Amino acid sequence: MVDVFAKCRLPEAYQFVKDLGVYPYYRAVGERPGEGEVVIDGRVLVQAGSNDYLGLSGDERVKEAAVEATRRLGTGTGGSRLSNGSLTLHEELEARLAAFLGREAVMVTSAGYLANLALAALIGPGDTVIGDRLVHACLIDAVRVGGARLRRYRHNDMDHLERLLDAGDPGAGRLIVTEGMFSTSGSVCALPGIAKLARAYGARVVMDSAHDVGLLGANGRGAAEEQGLENAVDLQTITFSKALGTLGGAVAGRAEIIAYLRHYARSMVFTAALPPACAAAALAALEIIAAEPERRHRLRATAERLSGDLAAMGYAVAPSDRPVIAVPVGDDLLCFRLWRELFDEGVFTTAMISPGVPPGQALIRVSITATHTDAQVERIVSAFAAARDRLRLFSDA
Amino acid sequence: MVDVFAKCRLPEAYQFVKDLGVYPYYRAVGERPGEGEVVIDGRVLVQAGSNDYLGLSGDERVKEAAVEATRRLGTGTGGSRLSNGSLTLHEELEARLAAFLGREAVMVTSAGYLANLALAALIGPGDTVIGDRLVHACLIDAVRVGGARLRRYRHNDMDHLERLLDAGDPGAGRLIVTEGMFSTSGSVCALPGIAKLARAYGARVVMDSAHDVGLLGANGRGAAEEQGLENAVDLQTITFSKALGTLGGAVAGRAEIIAYLRHYARSMVFTAALPPACAAAALAALEIIAAEPERRHRLRATAERLSGDLAAMGYAVAPSDRPVIAVPVGDDLLCFRLWRELFDEGVFTTAMISPGVPPGQALIRVSITATHTDAQVERIVSAFAAARDRLRLFSDA
Repeated sequence: MVDVFAKCRLPEAYQFVKDLGVYPYYRAVGERPGEGEVVIDGRVLVQAGSNDYLGLSGDERVKEAAVEATRRLGTGTGGSRLSNGSLTLHEELEARLAAFLGREAVMVTSAGYLANLALAALIGPGDTVIGDRLVHACLIDAVRVGGARLRRYRHNDMDHLERLLDAGDPGAGRLIVTEGMFSTSGSVCALPGIAKLARAYGARVVMDSAHDVGLLGANGRGAAEEQGLENAVDLQTITFSKALGTLGGAVAGRAEIIAYLRHYARSMVFTAALPPACAAAALAALEIIAAEPERRHRLRATAERLSGDLAAMGYAVAPSDRPVIAVPVGDDLLCFRLWRELFDEGVFTTAMISPGVPPGQALIRVSITATHTDAQVERIVSAFAAARDRLRLFSDA
Repeated sequence: MVDVFAKCRLPEAYQFVKDLGVYPYYRAVGERPGEGEVVIDGRVLVQAGSNDYLGLSGDERVKEAAVEATRRLGTGTGGSRLSNGSLTLHEELEARLAAFLGREAVMVTSAGYLANLALAALIGPGDTVIGDRLVHACLIDAVRVGGARLRRYRHNDMDHLERLLDAGDPGAGRLIVTEGMFSTSGSVCALPGIAKLARAYGARVVMDSAHDVGLLGANGRGAAEEQGLENAVDLQTITFSKALGTLGGAVAGRAEIIAYLRHYARSMVFTAALPPACAAAALAALEIIAAEPERRHRLRATAERLSGDLAAMGYAVAPSDRPVIAVPVGDDLLCFRLWRELFDEGVFTTAMISPGVPPGQALIRVSITATHTDAQVERIVSAFAAARDRLRLFSDA
């Protein structure tokens, strides 16, 4: 008899890394003393790994909206949106999101993961999903749940995408899946190429704007707005856990598709509705995003400055105004050691190894937020300088 | 070229049911004027479809815990638990849940759906999952994501379960999946039989206690505690969106399994952490569940009374003290009409049709909460009496 739990063994490297003191995960924040700061094990660090890009999770207006909704409507809804958990607050948020995104209809889900998982209802065994190699795990899970065939093209490689479309069964429904801005690399999707190929091959396009809504485009509608190609995207999914500063997600698109998802997407129909606090926070965040474009301008200026400084220091960073700065390291252990040096220098970053990124391409991810002060950016820069010297990085140069 | 969206058509019955005015879904609550009450379209109704079984989503202590956490820690965490979103508040909740459930370790997820989806990490193509026919959609999705083989046994039918175990590949890892109390029927799982078969066949057992944690057992630990068989359950999953009154979920079990899930469960690793408000609300709810057993006693007494009254009225309800009362109707349209009659009488119930329940077994689900007053229960009873007369139900009797 085979024990189904026999596979549940952490690799030996886990204990090794823990013993070395460089294990970077599940570090618990106790307090948030100020914008861009966290307290971990009693020390104040610069939070340089947060996806709260606009700093809205700590904004007083957003917090008070959540407080008011909690007091008025409670801490939960007691049911799914379908059955007994819908609030007019959810409907208000959906209408506001539809207007903001310029889409016919929006369906709010209880997590970004669940928004992408809802796509499973659109893709069955007769369909093929062709996804960028770097798309998020939940998009892959949606394909598995739906039962469609999955093909993956090299990141932003339009020739590869075309070959996969060309080789596919012309009798299959086809869905191209991309992120707007990719969360691990900070790169923006090659939408012009995708749009052209989608038209040529009759494929639909889903864009996950988790990391670009609120940040890119003149109005903050994301990567498709920035590229002037919003009509080429059939469905846009977003999460509230990045620029919107709370938890939740949404799918935006044509009204009939959204109505279909409301009744057939299992991750919508069979999940408890988003709590009042999160719905109200997302709504308040949306107003701020619309009213205060200077936040995303500040964010991008800071990112440009920091990425330039890191590149000048010798790190293999491409200077850019994207809020995600990927600092390539390669080796997992070196990545953990670099993470630890930065941590000791008072900067809390993210160490990414496989399967978050391809094997052998470990990296430190730095996320810039609109509320980072110049002094905090300075601290990030000096931490990277100190870590470089301590670890003798680029010492052959 | 086939349009992948071509399948996104709602059935004709959808418009028909809407035109008839009996469409029961996505009815939005505007306000919650008092315990057990909701305002829909300006009318005050008795909320008789909520899974907020102990009424804790409206409890002042739970709400103020959420308010305090929001003000102190913000409306979101800005990252996954793994990378940058862990809070000591999450760790405190996990420790408290482990103590409450009597399990070595607990992992908190951002929704109950995501807790069950985490099981995908335990089950691969070489494994077989044998699940009760009535288990929740997210458990099925976990099997699809994991890639295991799925077999389903008739609800609580131990002979069928044994035949499936017997027919299976003895070289496969085997996992039996059940709910503690089943959400659609209110029935409790046949754990003694499952425990015996699991031992005999070397299978592991997962129990989804979404609907029984906080309610069943001397300490509220759920169906396994009630049956004195907690050791027969290897992993217990729960949600915070029922008895705990907010959003979130958890997986509880042996420390090494939970540690494995923390690193390999995609719905944990790649999801934004639970917001402070929800974590604090769940923690406060847990204290109340431990300190005030009279809530679940009241709930069960009310359920017993109401189910008895409905049975006496002619409805095919088995009198029981379970908080979910399933009122069988059979036909979808009749189910919608009954729902509408109850709605017009001021009682908001849940109409369940396929795929929430098997086809042709439509039912009205009434959920009892601990805060329902005697007067509210009376209103539910008279609504069912009026609906019976109006629709001439059981008129051949």
